[in-house]
Amino acid sequence: MKIVTTIQEVRETVNAWRAEGLNVGFVPTMGYLHEGHQSLIHKASKENHRVVVSIFINPMQFGKNEDLDSYPRDLERDRQICFSAGADLIFYPSREEMYPEGFSTFVQITGITETLCGKSRPDHFRGVSTVVTKLFHIVKPDRAYFGQKDAQQAAVIKRLVRDLNLDIEIIACKTVREPDGLAKSSRNVYLSKEERAAAAVLRKALTLAENKLVSGERKAAEILQEMKEKICAERLATLDYVEIVDLETLEPVRCIEAPVLVAVAAYIGKTRLIDNFIYENIA
Amino acid sequence: MKIVTTIQEVRETVNAWRAEGLNVGFVPTMGYLHEGHQSLIHKASKENHRVVVSIFINPMQFGKNEDLDSYPRDLERDRQICFSAGADLIFYPSREEMYPEGFSTFVQITGITETLCGKSRPDHFRGVSTVVTKLFHIVKPDRAYFGQKDAQQAAVIKRLVRDLNLDIEIIACKTVREPDGLAKSSRNVYLSKEERAAAAVLRKALTLAENKLVSGERKAAEILQEMKEKICAERLATLDYVEIVDLETLEPVRCIEAPVLVAVAAYIGKTRLIDNFIYENIA
Repeated sequence: MKIVTTIQEVRETVNAWRAEGLNVGFVPTMGYLHEGHQSLIHKASKENHRVVVSIFINPMQFGKNEDLDSYPRDLERDRQICFSAGADLIFYPSREEMYPEGFSTFVQITGITETLCGKSRPDHFRGVSTVVTKLFHIVKPDRAYFGQKDAQQAAVIKRLVRDLNLDIEIIACKTVREPDGLAKSSRNVYLSKEERAAAAVLRKALTLAENKLVSGERKAAEILQEMKEKICAERLATLDYVEIVDLETLEPVRCIEAPVLVAVAAYIGKTRLIDNFIYENIA
Repeated sequence: MKIVTTIQEVRETVNAWRAEGLNVGFVPTMGYLHEGHQSLIHKASKENHRVVVSIFINPMQFGKNEDLDSYPRDLERDRQICFSAGADLIFYPSREEMYPEGFSTFVQITGITETLCGKSRPDHFRGVSTVVTKLFHIVKPDRAYFGQKDAQQAAVIKRLVRDLNLDIEIIACKTVREPDGLAKSSRNVYLSKEERAAAAVLRKALTLAENKLVSGERKAAEILQEMKEKICAERLATLDYVEIVDLETLEPVRCIEAPVLVAVAAYIGKTRLIDNFIYENIA
């Protein structure tokens, strides 16, 4: 496994693979890898001849008062996780390599970026779609792997690929969880011991929603109300949103008659966490 | 030479060429081809094994009161010009093929799209950079050819390619002119006989500027003043802008100390025409 910092080196490596007729899987990350990333890399290595992992904390997707400066990093640990999960190349660029002076091009998706996390993070998805477009052009993968934990991000990337005719298969992979149900996230490291225990409330609210759906409840308002109460009952939690939305448009659904995404975002202390599930078993 | 209407057919054709080790040149157009386009296709066919020409009147790059509906078209003539200039494939998609329902992704470049034509055509370059990004993803060319007559467009595409790390060489080609100096344009067909004669004033104003530069004038304001007077003296002409700008940033230059773009836009009757030249011989 190689680690490179320039676009030129990625191009040369991938072009050499291509010349041998090998296909390429890609896992874009911001580093501080956990079992969720590990599962993406592992899946990519099973489905492709070669796997590229990018590690880049993308400033463009952080809001002004967000955690860009404190975002956790540990390259040595990341390198070991990539290696053991089956990566062949790590792309670890500097900010200057990705955003040279005079950079002024943005990929913007309207509609689906304005709901859910887009409401409290207005420029976030513009940053995500811009950096992912760049990374897709640099790596030119056949397949790219994203975690379903970031459900809106996965929907945005799928829309981007469809609308801009990128010839890349996007694969959204199952969320990996802690034993108490908390979704794996690099940001979980911010939580104090007390907050860590409280954070399980996100998954508990989702399980509650799932149970109501299984038992036949079809009014979104009823389900959302119980989810809100569950989260607000947790002293350390501050609700950002709970929503039940259409899988493709991400627009709110009132009466559940087709598969939906049930999504939640909440602050646990100062740490913003998200989680979700897709409910498809509509009778 | 084949003509195809679906993205899938372009992909299959180009992939088959790639598999044979052939490289690909690309000339994106809106059709109603003239000797300018012809020269691009001819150059592309000399520099690449295979050449793709797209013919698509892109609604996204037209403003509300612009000439989308009246834009001239003649597919049979275009087909003959493509064939004789050396094209191997024409991509002639429908609007639905390019913009399926729910389309909501845009490629936006700030700064250089806000000067010159961007002032009077605020969404034009967003439409251009979005459709060109799509076409680049569909055709995956090694080289793409644009006319220098649309100097700002060429600068925008170069910025797009640089900022988004597209692995495509952009080649801006010399403007082809009528005997009286008028730049070839599909829109010249709109001109009445009287307007056609008057339209030569754009090139005359540019020649005047070039002469002043050659004779040592370095104050942009002096040169611009004479250009304005020249154009305003033509009864059928209404000035949109004359500008002297930096080649890369397209920002106005006051004192000419490095290569510059001298650009003009004017209405001749109701037809908006543009022209320009690059002055590089700075002593």
